[in-house]
Amino acid sequence: MTKTLSGKTNSGNFFEDFTVGQTIVHATPRTVSSGDQALYTALYGSRFAVQSATSFARSIGYPQSPVDDMLVFHIVFGKTVADISLNAVANLGYADCRFLKAVYPGDTLSTVSQVIGVKQNSNGKTGVVYVRSTGRNQKDQIVLEYTRWVMVRKRNADSPAPQTIVPDLPDSVDVNTLASACPAIETENFNTALSGSPHLWGDYAVGEKIDHVDGMTVEESDHMLATRLYQNTAKVHFNQHVQEQGPLGRRLIYGGHVISLARALSFNGLGNAFHVTAINGGRHIAPLFAGDTVYTWSQVTDKTAIPERDDIGALRISMIATKNHACTEFPDNKHENTILELDYWIIMPK
Amino acid sequence: MTKTLSGKTNSGNFFEDFTVGQTIVHATPRTVSSGDQALYTALYGSRFAVQSATSFARSIGYPQSPVDDMLVFHIVFGKTVADISLNAVANLGYADCRFLKAVYPGDTLSTVSQVIGVKQNSNGKTGVVYVRSTGRNQKDQIVLEYTRWVMVRKRNADSPAPQTIVPDLPDSVDVNTLASACPAIETENFNTALSGSPHLWGDYAVGEKIDHVDGMTVEESDHMLATRLYQNTAKVHFNQHVQEQGPLGRRLIYGGHVISLARALSFNGLGNAFHVTAINGGRHIAPLFAGDTVYTWSQVTDKTAIPERDDIGALRISMIATKNHACTEFPDNKHENTILELDYWIIMPK
Amino acid sequence: MTKTLSGKTNSGNFFEDFTVGQTIVHATPRTVSSGDQALYTALYGSRFAVQSATSFARSIGYPQSPVDDMLVFHIVFGKTVADISLNAVANLGYADCRFLKAVYPGDTLSTVSQVIGVKQNSNGKTGVVYVRSTGRNQKDQIVLEYTRWVMVRKRNADSPAPQTIVPDLPDSVDVNTLASACPAIETENFNTALSGSPHLWGDYAVGEKIDHVDGMTVEESDHMLATRLYQNTAKVHFNQHVQEQGPLGRRLIYGGHVISLARALSFNGLGNAFHVTAINGGRHIAPLFAGDTVYTWSQVTDKTAIPERDDIGALRISMIATKNHACTEFPDNKHENTILELDYWIIMPK
Repeated sequence: MTKTLSGKTNSGNFFEDFTVGQTIVHATPRTVSSGDQALYTALYGSRFAVQSATSFARSIGYPQSPVDDMLVFHIVFGKTVADISLNAVANLGYADCRFLKAVYPGDTLSTVSQVIGVKQNSNGKTGVVYVRSTGRNQKDQIVLEYTRWVMVRKRNADSPAPQTIVPDLPDSVDVNTLASACPAIETENFNTALSGSPHLWGDYAVGEKIDHVDGMTVEESDHMLATRLYQNTAKVHFNQHVQEQGPLGRRLIYGGHVISLARALSFNGLGNAFHVTAINGGRHIAPLFAGDTVYTWSQVTDKTAIPERDDIGALRISMIATKNHACTEFPDNKHENTILELDYWIIMPK
Repeated sequence: MTKTLSGKTNSGNFFEDFTVGQTIVHATPRTVSSGDQALYTALYGSRFAVQSATSFARSIGYPQSPVDDMLVFHIVFGKTVADISLNAVANLGYADCRFLKAVYPGDTLSTVSQVIGVKQNSNGKTGVVYVRSTGRNQKDQIVLEYTRWVMVRKRNADSPAPQTIVPDLPDSVDVNTLASACPAIETENFNTALSGSPHLWGDYAVGEKIDHVDGMTVEESDHMLATRLYQNTAKVHFNQHVQEQGPLGRRLIYGGHVISLARALSFNGLGNAFHVTAINGGRHIAPLFAGDTVYTWSQVTDKTAIPERDDIGALRISMIATKNHACTEFPDNKHENTILELDYWIIMPK
Repeated sequence: MTKTLSGKTNSGNFFEDFTVGQTIVHATPRTVSSGDQALYTALYGSRFAVQSATSFARSIGYPQSPVDDMLVFHIVFGKTVADISLNAVANLGYADCRFLKAVYPGDTLSTVSQVIGVKQNSNGKTGVVYVRSTGRNQKDQIVLEYTRWVMVRKRNADSPAPQTIVPDLPDSVDVNTLASACPAIETENFNTALSGSPHLWGDYAVGEKIDHVDGMTVEESDHMLATRLYQNTAKVHFNQHVQEQGPLGRRLIYGGHVISLARALSFNGLGNAFHVTAINGGRHIAPLFAGDTVYTWSQVTDKTAIPERDDIGALRISMIATKNHACTEFPDNKHENTILELDYWIIMPK
């Protein structure tokens, strides 16, 4: 048996390949279209009126319906996989994620990452890489930026450990940056019959818990269509032939698919939370597989006015998603059925 | 165990919540795009030339390809579910459904319903609610209206029965209203090689039966993608975790998905029936589940000219859809494999 | 039992129905939209930058992102099924396929075929039909043409055999016609960080083998969504109720779906092969079924400059796709897991 390697395929970066300060320009830029918006609706059933209806968006001050924030996130994130996490053992977390500018159909998104930290693990075989990724539109305006850290395999266990640098990450995104992607909202035109909920920012209290009631079962086709739409190429989502020989035995569902499902389900209780403006942190606690049913519940953990904005306010939401377990009793992040916790800020009209 | 209800989620209306004359404005308005049209093609494989090709549509008098009539129906209908049928036991029927104005990509659809009848059942636990739902575009023009009636649970079996009011419903939509969504057709430009059928209105005879031959198997992903695309949130379509504990054991496929499948299959035999202009009545006779294969056949039950229209005529079609049973022998609505009967009017060029 | 046939359904053409010189205008014309492009991305995860990003396409000389070549092929091909291969026993091969003009969203595609050969088989029950199919846009410009040959059943075994005419087919498409669908490329703007590969035309050598590494598992929903999107109505792809009674027992996946999967996987190693300009020949060696995982590898079999084009060159690629077998060892077309071989030309920047 001979093995001719052309050296032209991407085998991804290993821990040794990352150095603090390094900048990585990711392929492939992607123009977002109304076709992507339609697919996003079909994949999650999202019902937020601003993203669903041009007329509603215009009535409150948007030039047109913006692209769903999480769709923007997934497209920006998807580009980083081939360079950052192709050899990842685990996606450890997100922090300081800011949605800075609205994205509209026709905009083209691209992503650049900077390595901001590295820390070899004590086993010598893996290390943690911290990157700050920045999504930009075709005008080179930043639409999204976030930090994530992943555990990556070393190419060679004998490679020397780099100097440990762990970035200082905020627990919560700064309130002053929360609203830049949201135009001035004409709140008098915000029709709550059409938006599907009478409850505005002032109606929510810190500590309030909301069981979003509904459950959504995921199929293999669903999550693969979604993950390909985002041009995310992580092998574990797509290759049953390899997965069935591994410890899971199945394809692993992209964690972002869980976030979008939970966000769509959260409409039932947070119907006027029309904009995700920041993600303070997130953690995938357990894997989701096809055939599982996702439920979610939210707690309002903070509430803040936004400087110089009388139209809108922000709610900090702690969202828990579970599989095959209704959230009636508000299971915490240690519950055996919990798969996700996400700490994020949403915008609501005042 | 404690149960903190925030009171912000939608638990739907119960029989007691409906009163005759009441108007319900439904969330969420929805802008229809070419992305929705592409998904509709991918979901059903529809081949009607007017909806498929801008050039064909323009050649016969449309400004561009209209959105498929049944896609309009599903979007308008989907909005009513959260308010009308979230606590429904059964969707009993449709009547007097009129497609009044063509919908084009870019149009935004919204729906308002009026309660036109209530009738408590003798068991005291449920009642029938009749609503007249009206879909409008962003110019407030009515594009579609229809009556449907559903059996809804009472919140409290002890609630007093309301006065019975049952609306008078026509057996068939009035012929004079049949063509308002159809522009003047330049029949000399209607290219039957491109449309896929040489048979025009004059070629069909009352009583004629057409077996549409082909069968289409449905998967869980297919019907869930479709039903989410319509923002229809009825729980029975999506939550296997709950369904597997119930009498069906499986997710129930949205009845409208069956209608669209049958309509797409009917192209083979009714290829020039480019416009569904009215639905006289419809009934879901048995449930469809993933893995089942849908077949359909049609009978021409009436044929009419349309006042002041020399370009087009209408055919009244009785369509039967079955599961896992070819329609070679024209099974009737009592056949054990029959799942749908739909009585509707289509438009064909003269 | 009575059987009323209306005679209005399409039962397809049989071998006797084809005569050399005959022209067949196919239904249904189809306007391609950004919705179709989004679906294509979701179905295959394709990452070629020219098709993905308007900004990238414009920077190198396209007016906007062209529609993926294989999506054009599938739409043009899909139209021929109802007339050419509804009664086909087997799809035998493709040859001399040329992509002659770029297709953009908004273009409407239609297809005409000419019968160029017939040859009855010695068993007297079937025959081979050769057609030259031509896809045109709304301006009547040819965007694609190709020859395919299929084995078709005879309606009546007693029909006399026609005179055998077998067309002369080139082994390879003429190099001089290779670039007409590709505008002048501003190679200095071809950003290889964004395109995802540093390797240009000059970097590839004849004989070079590339294992594209990744595998993609196919689900029933995936291939049916795709095949319906192309309005391809071949029964074997859709009807489990019939298929489970036949020798395969399962739905057969459209061969074009395999080609698109392999082409998308080939990005990893051929990332700058932004345009498929010709297919010299192709053969489906074994069927693919849902649940199978597709892998692929390529060999560069020829390399040519293109007359009067300093910007681009062409590579002739022999692509093998397998199921449930990684291509690390470059399995040939006789390997038990090989399902496809495709001999085609791609364009790369110089």
